[in-house]
Amino acid sequence: MDFNLTLDSESEVPLYRQLSIKIGDKIRLGEMALGERLPATRELAGLLGLNRTTVSAAYELLESEGLIAGHVGRGSFVTAGPATQATGVNWTSLLNRAEPPAVAPVTPGTVSLSFATSRPARDLFPLDDFRSSCASVLARSDLADILQLGSPSGYEPLRRYLLADAREQGVAGPGDDLIVTNGCQQALDLIGRVLVRPGDSVVVEDPVYPGLKSLFAEMGARLIGVAAGPDGFDAAAFEQVLSRERPRLVVVTPNFQNPTGNTLPLAARRALLAAARQARIPVIENDAYHDLRYEGEDLPAIKRLDDAGNTVLLRSFSKLSFPGLRVGWVVGPKPLLDRLRQAKQVADLHTDQLSQAVLLEFAGSGRLEAHRQRVLRAGAERLAATLEGCNRRLPPGTKVTHPQGGMNVWVRLPEPLDAGELLGRAQREGVSYLPGRWFAVSRFEPGALRLSFAGLTADEIGRGLAILGQVFHAELERSSRSSEPAPAMV
Amino acid sequence: MDFNLTLDSESEVPLYRQLSIKIGDKIRLGEMALGERLPATRELAGLLGLNRTTVSAAYELLESEGLIAGHVGRGSFVTAGPATQATGVNWTSLLNRAEPPAVAPVTPGTVSLSFATSRPARDLFPLDDFRSSCASVLARSDLADILQLGSPSGYEPLRRYLLADAREQGVAGPGDDLIVTNGCQQALDLIGRVLVRPGDSVVVEDPVYPGLKSLFAEMGARLIGVAAGPDGFDAAAFEQVLSRERPRLVVVTPNFQNPTGNTLPLAARRALLAAARQARIPVIENDAYHDLRYEGEDLPAIKRLDDAGNTVLLRSFSKLSFPGLRVGWVVGPKPLLDRLRQAKQVADLHTDQLSQAVLLEFAGSGRLEAHRQRVLRAGAERLAATLEGCNRRLPPGTKVTHPQGGMNVWVRLPEPLDAGELLGRAQREGVSYLPGRWFAVSRFEPGALRLSFAGLTADEIGRGLAILGQVFHAELERSSRSSEPAPAMV
Repeated sequence: MDFNLTLDSESEVPLYRQLSIKIGDKIRLGEMALGERLPATRELAGLLGLNRTTVSAAYELLESEGLIAGHVGRGSFVTAGPATQATGVNWTSLLNRAEPPAVAPVTPGTVSLSFATSRPARDLFPLDDFRSSCASVLARSDLADILQLGSPSGYEPLRRYLLADAREQGVAGPGDDLIVTNGCQQALDLIGRVLVRPGDSVVVEDPVYPGLKSLFAEMGARLIGVAAGPDGFDAAAFEQVLSRERPRLVVVTPNFQNPTGNTLPLAARRALLAAARQARIPVIENDAYHDLRYEGEDLPAIKRLDDAGNTVLLRSFSKLSFPGLRVGWVVGPKPLLDRLRQAKQVADLHTDQLSQAVLLEFAGSGRLEAHRQRVLRAGAERLAATLEGCNRRLPPGTKVTHPQGGMNVWVRLPEPLDAGELLGRAQREGVSYLPGRWFAVSRFEPGALRLSFAGLTADEIGRGLAILGQVFHAELERSSRSSEPAPAMV
Repeated sequence: MDFNLTLDSESEVPLYRQLSIKIGDKIRLGEMALGERLPATRELAGLLGLNRTTVSAAYELLESEGLIAGHVGRGSFVTAGPATQATGVNWTSLLNRAEPPAVAPVTPGTVSLSFATSRPARDLFPLDDFRSSCASVLARSDLADILQLGSPSGYEPLRRYLLADAREQGVAGPGDDLIVTNGCQQALDLIGRVLVRPGDSVVVEDPVYPGLKSLFAEMGARLIGVAAGPDGFDAAAFEQVLSRERPRLVVVTPNFQNPTGNTLPLAARRALLAAARQARIPVIENDAYHDLRYEGEDLPAIKRLDDAGNTVLLRSFSKLSFPGLRVGWVVGPKPLLDRLRQAKQVADLHTDQLSQAVLLEFAGSGRLEAHRQRVLRAGAERLAATLEGCNRRLPPGTKVTHPQGGMNVWVRLPEPLDAGELLGRAQREGVSYLPGRWFAVSRFEPGALRLSFAGLTADEIGRGLAILGQVFHAELERSSRSSEPAPAMV
């Protein structure tokens, strides 16, 4: 085997990397046979005039690529043949470098009553109002502008409408700007891109919805969970965290949190804000459910309470109107928004303009507000049906949150019930939900599950909870029987 | 000053970081005054029972945050007052951690003839056909499904349509899958997210459009430019790169490359593929201009020539139909597509479904193909007008590419003309273009500029080039005069 390799000491590619590439090519081309022994590191270093550690580093790299294997005292041997060349790229090993995110399981087709997805009711979509809004947009003289390449800030008439509305609500001050995103999920993604680096820590509620966990986990951030109790995010626990370390940012859902449905009271909003301000940490106010209050009084947004410009407010059309149209927005301090606009351009140029124009028409014409009133009536009824069903059907000892709005109720079954283990049985009976492990940050409760009620009618909710009640009761009975002392074998 | 601080040696937060946070809080709260001297590192280490290097590391962190400053031989002093607390988050310093991407300048309002944006002609949009497509979608019985939350893979009827089409064209094999993205830009972004890590190198054409440069630069990748000459991407230069190092992936635009307009010949496609395969590097075939060939024969896609599953093909509706609707797609090996689907869900859940449904109707009804025939006729005429205008109006010695399709012509003015310096003058005369520096990877030519001709009529192109010719000729004359020997001062 000819090891008279030429390396370029002037190159910015390190010598050990050049060496591993040259040897790897020999293996892939079949110039070195499977099982062939490589020169000892000391020997090759002498031959090529390299430092011995350079050769060792190259061998380590080849070993990590699965091309060679070292055996103590015996040397290194080729473990891959030229056959691997024909397959070209090894996608699996390339992709292994990235952690796959936790994505919720898709509900199988046999399920007819799904509590698994936090989304609006299909049966409430105001299709005729939607058609009218589209017709208005299609009749406009500037239709061609809507179809032409747009701005990363958003469709300007919609952007101005949303900014005026935010100013009126007191959530956009003179130092703020607004850009349109593909829903709140993209807003969070863009914020992560410009603020979070691998190894940073991010404070989130615990439990929190999987889309938020996956997002920051994929960015290499470490999640710090702060309990989301009956009063929402625990500001005292947050202060505890800040006494120990300096997270990069905190993300909080002030209204009808997903999955608990809980709302942050005014005092807790102020305490969170004060703690974040003192530590100089941005507060990301993730407020997609804002418009869906079925009872009680609206509370001021954290953004509104903040006079120091530390808060970034995220809102969306997707929970109230049509989630298939991906339109949300961010309101926050101009320096951040300037960077978000750049990140948006890099990510996908701009948000779809047809949907922006249609949603502007839908909102500006008053149809959105009319729809909201219908959604609030239905939502109140569905929430009541859920709470009543839980109360009547679920086993004694079950704990259930009591949201004032939104789409989700958080259920904690009594021990020894495991909501994850019981999901398969429930699905075979035609009912689905998401078990607690999808939401846990650091506090995993086996008995926990989320019921997303907004997409089901009160009748469906009643039937679904009756079935869940049967499944859970049957398991309780089985487990109490199996824990009885076994009879003597005769 | 009380330095009796309590640190937690059990915490996963390093002690130096805890210490810097505690001292930083004292400064922000005004417990330490501006100008106050901090204890010497040795002194504080003794007081707290810490290693002296721990204290030094904490002081360095405080210094990097601008809270203290060290002076050799004199110690460290507080340089920030509690006043900084009121402002809370320092957005500028938070955001400084990320490099802002290179984003092309926005054309000012006074410009009436813009060659600056590579986008379709607004005057060619088939508005009535678009309205008819929308009407068909709005009349459908499954409209509510389109408006409901969708799949990260894309709107299933569109996905199936595109996959069947890709199979028919021979660019999707049995090991391939397809997902819908928000145009090619998002497809590239998702590929970068799952494959590229900071420090990786990525091979791109040189010159290449700014959106591609910004994307990988923002991910912390190092760009390696391979010249895009008259025959497109230089496969021999690519092999040279591979003999030195192992880039993470190579991105190539096979047809009517942006900005040069050049097309990769068949032999170069095969050579690129063979080199990438041997080095086991994925080829990203960025093919947004594919449908816009005005003359000559279509060449097979690289994806079609690849029987080893190394190529990922990106296509889009945005260059042919309506760029305001953000719909593109990716075809590639299943293991990669599975990860892209997860990344898509994290990024923005899914692509807007109204636009996906409308574009499916537009394509499936044959309206897209009818529109394409009109676009091809207009494009051929506009390209001819551009080449003729360059020939007639630009100074002798100007070099111009001769694309067979697409939207862009690459112009190289003779020395000493600088296209960047002359842009302001051209804009004052009402004409805009993008100078070469926006496209340069490592080979910057001051005389280079991109003319995007597709959005202008032949008449506008003629007028625009007449003005550019005047500006460039005037500058040539001025510079030749100023290089004459100065007359004696008398």
